[in-house]
Amino acid sequence: MGQTRGDIMNTTRGPAVRLAELPAFDCWHLIESVEISRVAWNGPQGVSVVPVNHVVSDGALWFRTTPYSALALECRGQWVAAEVDSVDPATHTGWSVVVRGVAELVDAEDVPEQLADFRVWPAGTRNVFVRVEPVEVTGRKLVAPHVG
Amino acid sequence: MGQTRGDIMNTTRGPAVRLAELPAFDCWHLIESVEISRVAWNGPQGVSVVPVNHVVSDGALWFRTTPYSALALECRGQWVAAEVDSVDPATHTGWSVVVRGVAELVDAEDVPEQLADFRVWPAGTRNVFVRVEPVEVTGRKLVAPHVG
Repeated sequence: MGQTRGDIMNTTRGPAVRLAELPAFDCWHLIESVEISRVAWNGPQGVSVVPVNHVVSDGALWFRTTPYSALALECRGQWVAAEVDSVDPATHTGWSVVVRGVAELVDAEDVPEQLADFRVWPAGTRNVFVRVEPVEVTGRKLVAPHVG
Repeated sequence: MGQTRGDIMNTTRGPAVRLAELPAFDCWHLIESVEISRVAWNGPQGVSVVPVNHVVSDGALWFRTTPYSALALECRGQWVAAEVDSVDPATHTGWSVVVRGVAELVDAEDVPEQLADFRVWPAGTRNVFVRVEPVEVTGRKLVAPHVG
């Protein structure tokens, strides 16, 4: 049968899921369960967003990068939003957490000892650490309707 | 053996991968291969980033949302950056594409016919479409050193 114009109001297909808020405590556990943040900030050319490896240490979210990256050159002292998620395209379930705060650049020699263990995926020297002290942490999950 | 302070300059562990640029043509194919964008924009409370389902149609990137979402309330006429990626934590390989452009809100009844087929994961009416006309499309891939 042909699709009618009225079908456009049917917004879902496949597993029906609903959005629910996540408590902040759960958010930190989830952030630590994966290795990638998508970090957004407002730079000279408008808003930018890049994926980076992260680690949680000392109550903050940390990245490490080269001194020549857009992240290092533009985010110092800026408000940033880091989004962390894990989703399953098959079931349409998953979660997303956003950490917001001001980014601070820290030289490799000045980071806390436990950060010495922080490795990133791409090869190359990444001797600038970015520390985001969280001001706001929010999370949502996509859940199947009958499992809470 | 104990880890020495000098180890902090060793930035990778596990598979060594390198970053390479992606041609714009490849970027569009990759965007169409997955269902999620992380959309960032600069709102009244600073930069925000949310994951949303996307579709490519008519040369633009489209989302659909509720009229009450932060995305709908804040991104109209704003410069946005949408990041799309797929990464494999086991091999540290993957890709990331960023589409930048100005977001335009379109009512459900005014979208092109082919958008009638665009479904999103969460249940609920999502009758606001967001259209991002691409101004800049950039992509990078993380590749194992010997496979280009």
